[in-house]
Amino acid sequence: MKQIWLRKTGGPEVLKVESHADLTSVSPDEVLIDVHYSGINFADIIMRLGLYQDAPKRPYVPGYEVSGIVKEKGPEVRGINVGDQVVAGTLFGGYSSQVKVPQDLVFKIPPHLDLAHAAALPVNWITAHAALFDMARVRPGDRVLIDAATGGVGTLALQMLRHAGAKTIGLTSSPSKKDYIQALGATPMTHEEFKSQSEALFFDVILNTQGGRSVRDHYNRLAPTGRVIALGISSAVPNGKRDMLAFFKMVVTMPRFWLVSMFNENRGVFALNALSLLQNADYRRNLKSKWGTISQQDLKPHVDKISSADDIASAHSYLESKKAKGKILISWV
Amino acid sequence: MKQIWLRKTGGPEVLKVESHADLTSVSPDEVLIDVHYSGINFADIIMRLGLYQDAPKRPYVPGYEVSGIVKEKGPEVRGINVGDQVVAGTLFGGYSSQVKVPQDLVFKIPPHLDLAHAAALPVNWITAHAALFDMARVRPGDRVLIDAATGGVGTLALQMLRHAGAKTIGLTSSPSKKDYIQALGATPMTHEEFKSQSEALFFDVILNTQGGRSVRDHYNRLAPTGRVIALGISSAVPNGKRDMLAFFKMVVTMPRFWLVSMFNENRGVFALNALSLLQNADYRRNLKSKWGTISQQDLKPHVDKISSADDIASAHSYLESKKAKGKILISWV
Repeated sequence: MKQIWLRKTGGPEVLKVESHADLTSVSPDEVLIDVHYSGINFADIIMRLGLYQDAPKRPYVPGYEVSGIVKEKGPEVRGINVGDQVVAGTLFGGYSSQVKVPQDLVFKIPPHLDLAHAAALPVNWITAHAALFDMARVRPGDRVLIDAATGGVGTLALQMLRHAGAKTIGLTSSPSKKDYIQALGATPMTHEEFKSQSEALFFDVILNTQGGRSVRDHYNRLAPTGRVIALGISSAVPNGKRDMLAFFKMVVTMPRFWLVSMFNENRGVFALNALSLLQNADYRRNLKSKWGTISQQDLKPHVDKISSADDIASAHSYLESKKAKGKILISWV
Repeated sequence: MKQIWLRKTGGPEVLKVESHADLTSVSPDEVLIDVHYSGINFADIIMRLGLYQDAPKRPYVPGYEVSGIVKEKGPEVRGINVGDQVVAGTLFGGYSSQVKVPQDLVFKIPPHLDLAHAAALPVNWITAHAALFDMARVRPGDRVLIDAATGGVGTLALQMLRHAGAKTIGLTSSPSKKDYIQALGATPMTHEEFKSQSEALFFDVILNTQGGRSVRDHYNRLAPTGRVIALGISSAVPNGKRDMLAFFKMVVTMPRFWLVSMFNENRGVFALNALSLLQNADYRRNLKSKWGTISQQDLKPHVDKISSADDIASAHSYLESKKAKGKILISWV
């Protein structure tokens, strides 16, 4: 099999494909998957730069998600069979042409999606679904703001919100992406247009992916009883460079919400990290029943680009450029 | 008319009934009410002690809620007529046998309630409803913890949660109140029993009324994607005494939620103050349509005691004793 190891931190060029022996002998509740596609996440970049606190010790194989065909399964695995097309959450190790995964993180591919689009689901879908349906519990008529509407999470969130009957504004930094947002049922605005509105808008739900000071700014844009959900720290990594000043600035400007001050504001704040959520047994128990909503909501991830595994460095660079819409995948086939 | 003025801070004895000229001449959108009952709230005690930051300048008439009969209405008032039995939210001024209130804070009495029980509704109902349905957005099967289950808010919250199909644990400091909690459909526990469980329970929703360190303790008891809603600071006022040490301790132990630390916790925190919520036009606009849920949910506030207005001091003392279940009212009739 082939794998991409992170042996030292740095630019995209530190990622290289290596050959290793094939996997064998699954545990009783494990599934062995021949991987077709692996998803790339922004967290992979933060890890590659050495800025991710909870990353494993180097060297390791990054990657949180794969799609592929079941090659082998343990005797306790139920509902998944050899030959099935599946996606899986991999808590690291996803940049690999073979993976072994416990069965509660293996999901059948929704019938309306192919292997490539399905590989774009796990991290983005868990993030968008947990933020909108588990935390915010979106309702018809909710006024919702999505601050990175054309990314992988944003693309799914806009579709979920259209299905839920919310009134959504989707933000983008690039005017050329406004059509993309509109096609997904939301009102598009550039960040500049949003900031320069003559009359401030207020929201019941805001998804924040930038982190830092922007979380407080968004908190201040909440309608009474509204909530902001912090999902990321993209402002810490401008243009994919290891920029310790930007990182430090993000951390120190991250707000502290003091309950005494919150009392007269009647608002709420959540933070969400899909990767730590996936490590929680309580959350994992209910995950398979939620997976069915992907078909009900007819969710279609947008795959911007599929790179061969050998081109992993340029795939990382492309994600860092923030020019992509939706997901970037590595192909092993 | 008669009114109770707060002219100096101190013990219950500072509150005295005074006679003043009757109210006249309503504004176009105002309603003049002959008050039958006024509700007493814990915030009134904190104000009487001089510990409430947003209290008006003394002297003033405290009180947030009344029930009574409409005596006069302005020409722009719709849907409310002279002679109607109503309740009203009064942003101060409720300890009075007559009040003038803008129409958006005047509500018809739900058909299944009398004037006394209806007077127990406004503050407690707005608090419980906003916390459970606007902020937490409770769903069937939610695991919910109510930390002051026998108080005015708790009594309504337990009924709302039974109607919503939640699994609720209601806490009380007194073993003798456990039957009361059970009768409202929740599992009763004393605070001591809850703390000494061998296996920690986790919750999707927690309503916290104590403030201080307990908010962090409750946050730590949240299931993934759960939320704690802080509603009060009862720990700051032990036994109704002006205890600056207890107040200071509550303030300094109130947690600061730093977003950087929150990321791996996947939880949320809200704070709610019904009084500041009532001052928000956005929230007030939708309030009348929510009022109908009181009948749908067949909510019945518990009135523990009705004191004549002349006995206001002993009514305050009784609420401070924390022996009451549900609401304490002043009667003007």
